Amino acid sequence: MGEIFDIQTVVVIGSGNVAGHLAKAFREAGRSILQVFSPDTGHASSLAEKVGAEVASRLFAVTKEADLYLLAVPDKKITTVAARLPLVKGIVCHTSGITPLNVLARFENYGVFYPLQTFSKERVPDISQVPFCLEASSDIVYNRLQTLAGKLSQRVYAVDSAQRKNLHLAAVLVNNFPNYLYAEAEGFLKENHLSMKMLLPLMRETVAKIETMPANEAQTGPAMRGDHETIDKHLKMLENKNDLRAVYQILTQQILKKYHE
Amino acid sequence: MGEIFDIQTVVVIGSGNVAGHLAKAFREAGRSILQVFSPDTGHASSLAEKVGAEVASRLFAVTKEADLYLLAVPDKKITTVAARLPLVKGIVCHTSGITPLNVLARFENYGVFYPLQTFSKERVPDISQVPFCLEASSDIVYNRLQTLAGKLSQRVYAVDSAQRKNLHLAAVLVNNFPNYLYAEAEGFLKENHLSMKMLLPLMRETVAKIETMPANEAQTGPAMRGDHETIDKHLKMLENKNDLRAVYQILTQQILKKYHE
Repeated sequence: MGEIFDIQTVVVIGSGNVAGHLAKAFREAGRSILQVFSPDTGHASSLAEKVGAEVASRLFAVTKEADLYLLAVPDKKITTVAARLPLVKGIVCHTSGITPLNVLARFENYGVFYPLQTFSKERVPDISQVPFCLEASSDIVYNRLQTLAGKLSQRVYAVDSAQRKNLHLAAVLVNNFPNYLYAEAEGFLKENHLSMKMLLPLMRETVAKIETMPANEAQTGPAMRGDHETIDKHLKMLENKNDLRAVYQILTQQILKKYHE
Repeated sequence: MGEIFDIQTVVVIGSGNVAGHLAKAFREAGRSILQVFSPDTGHASSLAEKVGAEVASRLFAVTKEADLYLLAVPDKKITTVAARLPLVKGIVCHTSGITPLNVLARFENYGVFYPLQTFSKERVPDISQVPFCLEASSDIVYNRLQTLAGKLSQRVYAVDSAQRKNLHLAAVLVNNFPNYLYAEAEGFLKENHLSMKMLLPLMRETVAKIETMPANEAQTGPAMRGDHETIDKHLKMLENKNDLRAVYQILTQQILKKYHE
């Protein structure tokens, strides 16, 4: 790799949500997906067909001709997959928030292509709104990844392994945990024959506030007000739901502590 | 109250966020705010000035001529305020999610005008997107409240006291608790010189997913995948943050339990 060139050809390793959505996005940005590899050959075939790629039958037999090898596999499999992949000249990237860059150090050119977003199979994400956090083994590799990410999204950030790990943890706090709470609310409402749709404006406003004020100042509700009467009523309503009650209690205690100690 | 008429004149009791935002919304919908009462006379004057109202100096001395008396006061003060308010003919409403309708039963016409939204002083909410949950002492009163709420918002629901209480608890789950988690994430990122802005697309997508799929199916992340290695790394990163670590642990345990037991 001497001259600056655009990444044109991609091999996708993995066939989960991240692999699928990124492969489609690359293809829509005019790149060729040469091959897809996944130990789940059914998933691999299905994804390969959608993006006009071949299926690679074995990891050690993937083509050596691609510009980019995207390892969109579960975090704990990255090291194993990296060890089995041929020593290609193209850029080898993983897509993990929590995994350091240097697990790919056996390759000549490598990087991280981390989409800071939640992907589900059934939902097509707006890739142009996805922040891509990039890290690379050299400036040349970084520039190539940046050019590619820039074709997908306007939100491209240089983020090193230490910072990416912090973003990943924060993402759990603002996505995984709120989504769990949404699911609990949805279940609770369903039992009471109420629709989650009624809460959507509130959920949207909860996020929209953070665009204009610090979350600390956006806090409202009984715990923030120190309204123990309401808290006790809620705990009573959750009498037969031990798990949700425990979650309600600890979060309420933390908010009380934060605003009233 | 015999004939159907629009509510034209309002007395606002309270001067907090809900009182302020609703008073302004009524005024923008062409209604007159006759008086504002609040034990905090500074707040009362400030709000009264903004909405072209008088300040009522005492609760028992408010005008008896208004069509609506809006009690937008802290939940635990509703009963006291209701007991001190003159026995007016106009509709007396509280705005509380958790308080039953019947605490206002000493009045001839009464109801609940509960906005299912989070209000902060510094932020002007889009009232047209606020769901209003209404309950009333009679059909005539209900129709009048519905007509008024319909001038503010297209989302007007008939919700009885038992159901309103359930919505209020669900609102804590989808607003207060996620906002607390946002604040923790914001603090954590700040310590690491990272901006919350990078997480906003993820936060928006977290809510947007719920518009198209059940929250149970939208769940992603290490706990949902049963990825204990990542969970352990996160817990290690939170070693010196006992409170946040405790919250991380219980929410992770709940998600693990839900998807892996």
